[in-house]
Amino acid sequence: MIENHLYWGNGIDLDPRRISWKRAMDLNDRSLRRIITGLQDERDFTHETGFNITVASEVMAIFCLAENLADLRDRLGRIVVGKSRSGRDVTAADLKAHGSMAALLKDALAPNLVQSLEHTPALVHGGPFANIAHGCNSVIATKTALQLADYVVTEAGFGADLGAEKFFDIKCREAGLTPAASVVVATVRALKYHGGVSLKNLPKENPDAVERGFANLRRHLENLAKFGVPTVVAVNAFASDFPSERERLFSLCQGFGVPCVLATHWAEGGKGATDLATKVLETIAAETTSRFAPLYPLEMPLLEKLRTIAREIYRADDLEIDSSLVKELAALDATPVGRFPVCIAKTPYSFSADPENRGAATDFTLPVREIRVSAGAGFVVAITGDLMTMPGLPKHPAAETIDVDAEGNIVGLS
Amino acid sequence: MIENHLYWGNGIDLDPRRISWKRAMDLNDRSLRRIITGLQDERDFTHETGFNITVASEVMAIFCLAENLADLRDRLGRIVVGKSRSGRDVTAADLKAHGSMAALLKDALAPNLVQSLEHTPALVHGGPFANIAHGCNSVIATKTALQLADYVVTEAGFGADLGAEKFFDIKCREAGLTPAASVVVATVRALKYHGGVSLKNLPKENPDAVERGFANLRRHLENLAKFGVPTVVAVNAFASDFPSERERLFSLCQGFGVPCVLATHWAEGGKGATDLATKVLETIAAETTSRFAPLYPLEMPLLEKLRTIAREIYRADDLEIDSSLVKELAALDATPVGRFPVCIAKTPYSFSADPENRGAATDFTLPVREIRVSAGAGFVVAITGDLMTMPGLPKHPAAETIDVDAEGNIVGLS
Amino acid sequence: MIENHLYWGNGIDLDPRRISWKRAMDLNDRSLRRIITGLQDERDFTHETGFNITVASEVMAIFCLAENLADLRDRLGRIVVGKSRSGRDVTAADLKAHGSMAALLKDALAPNLVQSLEHTPALVHGGPFANIAHGCNSVIATKTALQLADYVVTEAGFGADLGAEKFFDIKCREAGLTPAASVVVATVRALKYHGGVSLKNLPKENPDAVERGFANLRRHLENLAKFGVPTVVAVNAFASDFPSERERLFSLCQGFGVPCVLATHWAEGGKGATDLATKVLETIAAETTSRFAPLYPLEMPLLEKLRTIAREIYRADDLEIDSSLVKELAALDATPVGRFPVCIAKTPYSFSADPENRGAATDFTLPVREIRVSAGAGFVVAITGDLMTMPGLPKHPAAETIDVDAEGNIVGLS
Amino acid sequence: MIENHLYWGNGIDLDPRRISWKRAMDLNDRSLRRIITGLQDERDFTHETGFNITVASEVMAIFCLAENLADLRDRLGRIVVGKSRSGRDVTAADLKAHGSMAALLKDALAPNLVQSLEHTPALVHGGPFANIAHGCNSVIATKTALQLADYVVTEAGFGADLGAEKFFDIKCREAGLTPAASVVVATVRALKYHGGVSLKNLPKENPDAVERGFANLRRHLENLAKFGVPTVVAVNAFASDFPSERERLFSLCQGFGVPCVLATHWAEGGKGATDLATKVLETIAAETTSRFAPLYPLEMPLLEKLRTIAREIYRADDLEIDSSLVKELAALDATPVGRFPVCIAKTPYSFSADPENRGAATDFTLPVREIRVSAGAGFVVAITGDLMTMPGLPKHPAAETIDVDAEGNIVGLS
Repeated sequence: MIENHLYWGNGIDLDPRRISWKRAMDLNDRSLRRIITGLQDERDFTHETGFNITVASEVMAIFCLAENLADLRDRLGRIVVGKSRSGRDVTAADLKAHGSMAALLKDALAPNLVQSLEHTPALVHGGPFANIAHGCNSVIATKTALQLADYVVTEAGFGADLGAEKFFDIKCREAGLTPAASVVVATVRALKYHGGVSLKNLPKENPDAVERGFANLRRHLENLAKFGVPTVVAVNAFASDFPSERERLFSLCQGFGVPCVLATHWAEGGKGATDLATKVLETIAAETTSRFAPLYPLEMPLLEKLRTIAREIYRADDLEIDSSLVKELAALDATPVGRFPVCIAKTPYSFSADPENRGAATDFTLPVREIRVSAGAGFVVAITGDLMTMPGLPKHPAAETIDVDAEGNIVGLS
Repeated sequence: MIENHLYWGNGIDLDPRRISWKRAMDLNDRSLRRIITGLQDERDFTHETGFNITVASEVMAIFCLAENLADLRDRLGRIVVGKSRSGRDVTAADLKAHGSMAALLKDALAPNLVQSLEHTPALVHGGPFANIAHGCNSVIATKTALQLADYVVTEAGFGADLGAEKFFDIKCREAGLTPAASVVVATVRALKYHGGVSLKNLPKENPDAVERGFANLRRHLENLAKFGVPTVVAVNAFASDFPSERERLFSLCQGFGVPCVLATHWAEGGKGATDLATKVLETIAAETTSRFAPLYPLEMPLLEKLRTIAREIYRADDLEIDSSLVKELAALDATPVGRFPVCIAKTPYSFSADPENRGAATDFTLPVREIRVSAGAGFVVAITGDLMTMPGLPKHPAAETIDVDAEGNIVGLS
Repeated sequence: MIENHLYWGNGIDLDPRRISWKRAMDLNDRSLRRIITGLQDERDFTHETGFNITVASEVMAIFCLAENLADLRDRLGRIVVGKSRSGRDVTAADLKAHGSMAALLKDALAPNLVQSLEHTPALVHGGPFANIAHGCNSVIATKTALQLADYVVTEAGFGADLGAEKFFDIKCREAGLTPAASVVVATVRALKYHGGVSLKNLPKENPDAVERGFANLRRHLENLAKFGVPTVVAVNAFASDFPSERERLFSLCQGFGVPCVLATHWAEGGKGATDLATKVLETIAAETTSRFAPLYPLEMPLLEKLRTIAREIYRADDLEIDSSLVKELAALDATPVGRFPVCIAKTPYSFSADPENRGAATDFTLPVREIRVSAGAGFVVAITGDLMTMPGLPKHPAAETIDVDAEGNIVGLS
Repeated sequence: MIENHLYWGNGIDLDPRRISWKRAMDLNDRSLRRIITGLQDERDFTHETGFNITVASEVMAIFCLAENLADLRDRLGRIVVGKSRSGRDVTAADLKAHGSMAALLKDALAPNLVQSLEHTPALVHGGPFANIAHGCNSVIATKTALQLADYVVTEAGFGADLGAEKFFDIKCREAGLTPAASVVVATVRALKYHGGVSLKNLPKENPDAVERGFANLRRHLENLAKFGVPTVVAVNAFASDFPSERERLFSLCQGFGVPCVLATHWAEGGKGATDLATKVLETIAAETTSRFAPLYPLEMPLLEKLRTIAREIYRADDLEIDSSLVKELAALDATPVGRFPVCIAKTPYSFSADPENRGAATDFTLPVREIRVSAGAGFVVAITGDLMTMPGLPKHPAAETIDVDAEGNIVGLS
């Protein structure tokens, strides 16, 4: 509808140089990441754009934060697709696209009830990216679940510095949710990796590396405490764990004062998570009042919001940010966008923006390279590294082996 | 899979300059007609390509000509996606893509049984373009129907010079079908238009224009006779037809010696087509033996096949074709492709390639601008004008009015 | 200046989709034929364009038709660089570019006096393409020469069907020149080629092939007679000519009634052309009055001008032209452009548009594919085939062998 | 020659995705900064590239560092134009382009002797960019001047943190030059600006701002001392300077212990620089031995070279550099490139990479965004911000006013 509007006279004076909205298609097609459209047609505008996969579209973030269909429609209408020549934001509502987008999503907005292998219910609903978006399932699914069950467990990926922070500061604040407890999932293997062990040496017994890598986990635990929510550590058991390593981890958690439970659900199903569940219920029961609070108030200027997360959660010395971006943020502060929470797109492999800086990184600054406003979703995204919003296929894609046999059966799927 | 193959080392030495295969997506998105993909990624190839809509993909043509799943898979594997650096055709089978393509289409290959408003059965199955492809529904659907019913009616669009010719010379020959009769649908309105009346003046009574426009219909009737199939003219009644105009048309058909029946099914449903059906059955019964034959033998050189259609069906003086294309066709004659039928992409608005040359065009040559081989479908396409294989939206697309109302109902669809 | 104007606000509302003006650079750089400029800069327009070599620019055609500096400036100002959004032509004058263009060309506009190897004076000045332009040297040079010498010889390439026709109908008419005689240069070798001999067999004696190929020369001679100018045939001697072949050619010319002279200037310099010069002077002296006249009047509609050249000079049966182009020409007829002469871009290898159709082609139509207005030069260009306005380098460009030696001398130039 | 090589079979297996060499053209044409070449020609490679202006080409840097024609030719041959598919560097010598490039530059390599307005000789020769290149005139010109005069003055722009550092560490080291003294040019106006005064308020008397801004000059003076070269401050007089401001500056320089001289050459010509020249000669005479030394040894790893400049000259806390670039530098250390000096492309407006961070910036890190090897010039470039290697025209380019008048004179040049 954007290019079509340009084609037919461009009544709202959209600037073809400043169209920021990309098409979305759910394929692994890296050649579509950056493309030029509209070659040599007398009335078509040639411009540089690209494709995102569906989950990287702001539509997915909006879908997951919408309270209901009317809210979804309004949010879709607020999506900024580009700028007019005079510099004004052009929205999906300006293009009259939001009504039909809402119509397309109408049925999808009802949460999807599925069952686990053990026939327990689960609502699977929405999956926004955890970098340029907030990475949690839909508000509607969570609220529906809260009305149906005594306890609701949800996941916020990836890495508590990203997943938990965004769950608390964006989703919970936006939806008025008050989480009663958090569970941090740790593995002996990952801690050893954070403790400096190379991938090749991970299979070797090394409880000291677990201890060194615990610095990473300890920081996550400290961070979660800042949101006023009690935490339980779930040790996701691997067959390759050594007893000495698990013991060391338990001992370190005990020393830090957080409960730590072995979870073997991967091998044993629900039975393997019973201890964990029991511990979480105990932890919730032990809290007399909810003390949950976001990390920063929405009244804080956007630059300070970013700095607060960078210092309090990532433990950066400061932001590294060009004065042009500082001005951009200050200009946004003077608009309603200034009251949006911020969503930092950062690698989950490190507290810093450098994926190879493992453990509990210190003595670094957080480089902010770009600011994007997700006006429909209602947050401001700060980009701190390379972003990938359209994946590519591996050297030998599964499509090479999938086939039909002589009887017409599909083969080669696994 | 094509660009991915290039990205991962290009083991089959595909020439990135000669990739002819385009992506397909079922949207009206004219900006995707001609695009450049793969901008500035260290390992990605930048190249010019585009999107087709689904029905314009050779996959659709293949789907409609395949005898069964195994044949579908083989044909998909024969699709030529480009050239190697040494000039060899590179096929979907070279990329190991045909198996998974067949797997994706496995369920779609079963014909779709629907019912008309009067609850009569219809098989709806496939819809290839009628310019770069043959424009008829699937062989599987037709053969299925032939096993289920006494009489099977199928449609071949658009214009008997394109639709009927391709149905007879491509689909019937390929599938071994022997049609018993053909029905040409005519309207008083279209004949007046072919008789030189402007769109504005079409509502005025003008039986003489019908007579002038009959030159167009007469040529279609002459053409159909060349395939050895008896023909009935169905006059598709319009409320705006004048009795004098219909009478003139009936009289002219009578003079030409073909039965002509008024059909009012648009207003009266099946009842309105009873006379037509009766006449068709009479016509079939009156034929003692099937005399159906294609226009040209497959042994004829490709250039002669094109010339035969141009002269016999379109009534062109000759082809207008560059010597480079003549050589290209001669080279193909030396390969199995030389035995393929030809599929001419021409405007349906005129017997000539000029859409404004109405009536029974004479004194023209047919310009052949490009030759394409659809190796999977099994025909050679000759392009005679501008082709549109990805439509655009109108100035006010329906999406602007589609919406959800306060109760969550979708509105604005009509 | 075009893109810069767009960048800085586009005050004259130039449509970035309809910029027709290309950059020019005097290099053999085929990769610059079709390019996309202005990728991803916030204020830059991305659009498809390309480079021409200098001689293919309308500036060169203008330069060669300008009477003086003021006329040059005015013509430069009339160059159409594109369309405004409202459909109006946007000119170089609209961009205020013509003054500085004229300033850049001020010194170049003075004809360049050089000398031949035998120290006779020659004015070398300008070199427009002979397809999209008129292919003759500058009006200023010709008029200067006419004031300095008793006889002025000029060249109009390539092929008399293109070069002579454009020289007469465009340059002579525009500049008020009255040529006294024309010389057609023929070679035995070329006539044998037109007589159907393959390149490989050209060295063999074959007077009959000369006779067959004479059909081509005869047609050129007939054509030149239509302009009312007496003609002399100059046989450009090749060492490989056989006496029997030259004799046949002389005999055929005599039979046709035109003088024919052997010219050996390639081997003997000016001395080798004395006979030719003498014959030309005799021919001029024999004419009592100048009967020169262009082929068509400027009042003729543009389509008729094209048809006249196609039929009278090329001997096509007719034009092959889409109705859209017919309308375009009719629209131009209603403007001052309708009084422009036409300049047909056609291959010089054949009277037809098919370079392989040798000899005196008959039974063909001339396909007109595109119309361009050169408003500054003052003619309408009709494109009849593929155009090449930016050459490429050969497999081993001279640059690979050019070098500097140890003494600093440039080597490898020949 | 690069694209032509690809076109004709690509014998050296150049990877079209990794061509780093750009065309150069001396125009202000921002639309050519980033382009896509080679659209849709059967044998041409489509790829993303761009144009530089001449001074931004590595050829200019090479030209200015070459000792003689043979050295020029060798260096041109070492230019890396891209990568082969196997990852090897492809050079201009691989393309056999260096010989003809040297031939083209043969005459240009002789320094250009001009005269000043006062008829004193000056050699003007070469002008490489001062960001991606070293920013000084040619080694040949400097060495020629040293043989012709007692004292040679040369300029190294812009900003002593860039210009002087590159002059010393790249040009002097490479050419074996030993500068006897350096002159830092300061203006009262610039110091006030560095002292925090806005552009609007610069005309107002403000000696305190001069004092604050002196922190910037002091740092430059400290930096120059690190190269072992005595320094004189030349105060470039502006009519708008207030006596109180100049006095403060003189007093501050005196306090720092460097001689400071008022220079009024802008108003008075050579006479206005006599005091400065006298002071420089005194300073040189006072030095008994040359103590010039580069800042870092060539044996130092590349990363350390960058860090040394960043800390010692710019006073950054450290580099901000991705681990991928660290690896890239380490890999280069293992090749002869590891012994190259480094050339940092940074804004001249600040010691930091942020142009708005005026005065004597502290508490910042230097972001290294990209590494490029100029193998022919012989240095490694580190990019720290946005680079502009092709300028654009202003809103009203001079071309709009340049014209020819009725007498044929060029007007509007000033």
